[in-house]
Amino acid sequence: VVERFQARLDRILRARDSLLCVGLDPDPALLPNPVKRMAASRRLPAFLDGVVRATRPHAAAYKFQLGSYLAFGAAGVAQLPRIVKSIGPNHLRILDMKANDIPNTMRLVRDGVFGQFGFDAVTVTPWLGWETLEPFSEDASKGVFIVAHSSNSGAPDFQEIPTPRGPLWLAIVGEVARLSALHGNTGAVVGATYIDAIRSARSALGVGVPILVPGVGTQGGQLSATVREGVDANGRALLVNSSRGIVYASSGSDWAAAAGAEAKRLKDQINQLRSGFGTGS
Amino acid sequence: VVERFQARLDRILRARDSLLCVGLDPDPALLPNPVKRMAASRRLPAFLDGVVRATRPHAAAYKFQLGSYLAFGAAGVAQLPRIVKSIGPNHLRILDMKANDIPNTMRLVRDGVFGQFGFDAVTVTPWLGWETLEPFSEDASKGVFIVAHSSNSGAPDFQEIPTPRGPLWLAIVGEVARLSALHGNTGAVVGATYIDAIRSARSALGVGVPILVPGVGTQGGQLSATVREGVDANGRALLVNSSRGIVYASSGSDWAAAAGAEAKRLKDQINQLRSGFGTGS
Repeated sequence: VVERFQARLDRILRARDSLLCVGLDPDPALLPNPVKRMAASRRLPAFLDGVVRATRPHAAAYKFQLGSYLAFGAAGVAQLPRIVKSIGPNHLRILDMKANDIPNTMRLVRDGVFGQFGFDAVTVTPWLGWETLEPFSEDASKGVFIVAHSSNSGAPDFQEIPTPRGPLWLAIVGEVARLSALHGNTGAVVGATYIDAIRSARSALGVGVPILVPGVGTQGGQLSATVREGVDANGRALLVNSSRGIVYASSGSDWAAAAGAEAKRLKDQINQLRSGFGTGS
Repeated sequence: VVERFQARLDRILRARDSLLCVGLDPDPALLPNPVKRMAASRRLPAFLDGVVRATRPHAAAYKFQLGSYLAFGAAGVAQLPRIVKSIGPNHLRILDMKANDIPNTMRLVRDGVFGQFGFDAVTVTPWLGWETLEPFSEDASKGVFIVAHSSNSGAPDFQEIPTPRGPLWLAIVGEVARLSALHGNTGAVVGATYIDAIRSARSALGVGVPILVPGVGTQGGQLSATVREGVDANGRALLVNSSRGIVYASSGSDWAAAAGAEAKRLKDQINQLRSGFGTGS
């Protein structure tokens, strides 16, 4: 019997005693100065390896923004399967590409992301309809995080449109709950800048259905409210993502150590905030 | 002064006397038999080169579904800049990735797709809000096709949600028109399986704003109604995409010739259908 994605996620959160997701989002303009001085072909692998080595003891998951890798061209994308393999299966590896396409294409995305690149989970958006989520039900060991409410200021334009089932994003949370009950491999993405949405999502999702929360740190979302409202009754089922705050913690020679220190600080702070919930860690 | 994307598109449609967009969407399971028998590393480049060589005289544009390339792994994505360069600037080269993310990420996508990979245009969806389209206004020579109404049967779930500005997809067409008036580099995607939507989109967009139409052929959209309702008053501003119907026209030894013949047939049929419009070709 295959281990379903939600069960695997919970096992890893417990084993690592961490809810931290490190956003490995390289930006050509923001690489640390010592990395910028390397030969062009060395920059991205050195940066990724350095951040992973320093943050590995503190992270439960790594999230890779596909756009960040496209910005480095095909050579950037070629780093993905390498670093996924290097991190290994004791952390979750999530490709953040917000896939949204017709079902036939979603199947190709699924086969590529899981089969070829080796990721454990992918983010999707539902803009092309509910049927476009179906291809991700076929392999329950791989996760699909459905974007319900994003972290940016323009998120309400579409996501808060009223419908008979409530605001559109809450109808999506309802679909996450329905698919989760069937397959045990779904989660929701809700931005840290919309705490009320995190609270409503947790209420609708109950225990064990993960919420992936971007937007703490640089984007201004509040960590304490995110953890308080986001964890389930066991104090888990939450991944708090930080990208720029960790990977660009320093632009100097201490860039890797600074990333590690910031990851540890954030992990510890999250654990302290959730210590009153359920079984804690 | 830079040539805006819409002006360039119109120049190419006239020069090539074609509204045909060939969807270069490889699928590992559907490659022609002679290609499947090649060494693994040769399959994808041989397939792409063969289809491009055969269809080049008939196509105005090529559309590349990113999911199709992810399905071949990083080596698949590495084919993209090579084939884009091989096609050259006398055809439009469109990356179909339906990008939708926070503005900071959309900027990285833009820099990668245009700067690193060399595409002329990209498809996006607006799920994360109007602000997420803004990064594509900065370089008017590069095009952005905004998905208003997709071709799949589940499209209405979100896209036809009623709003004070009409169904959601029509509000998006309105934004395409607004951005187009400002920057001259936007277009709309409307599926051939929703002819009423094509008619309303053309009515709202007027002359010169391109509509990219997927869904003829395998997906069942009607070609005659697509052309009749989709062209502008000049008989242009329309790209009719066919993917599987062309690139998998034959699975035998004549696969490349069959793709070329099908592209020619479709181009000629489209030209005949639009011959009564405006200046025709």
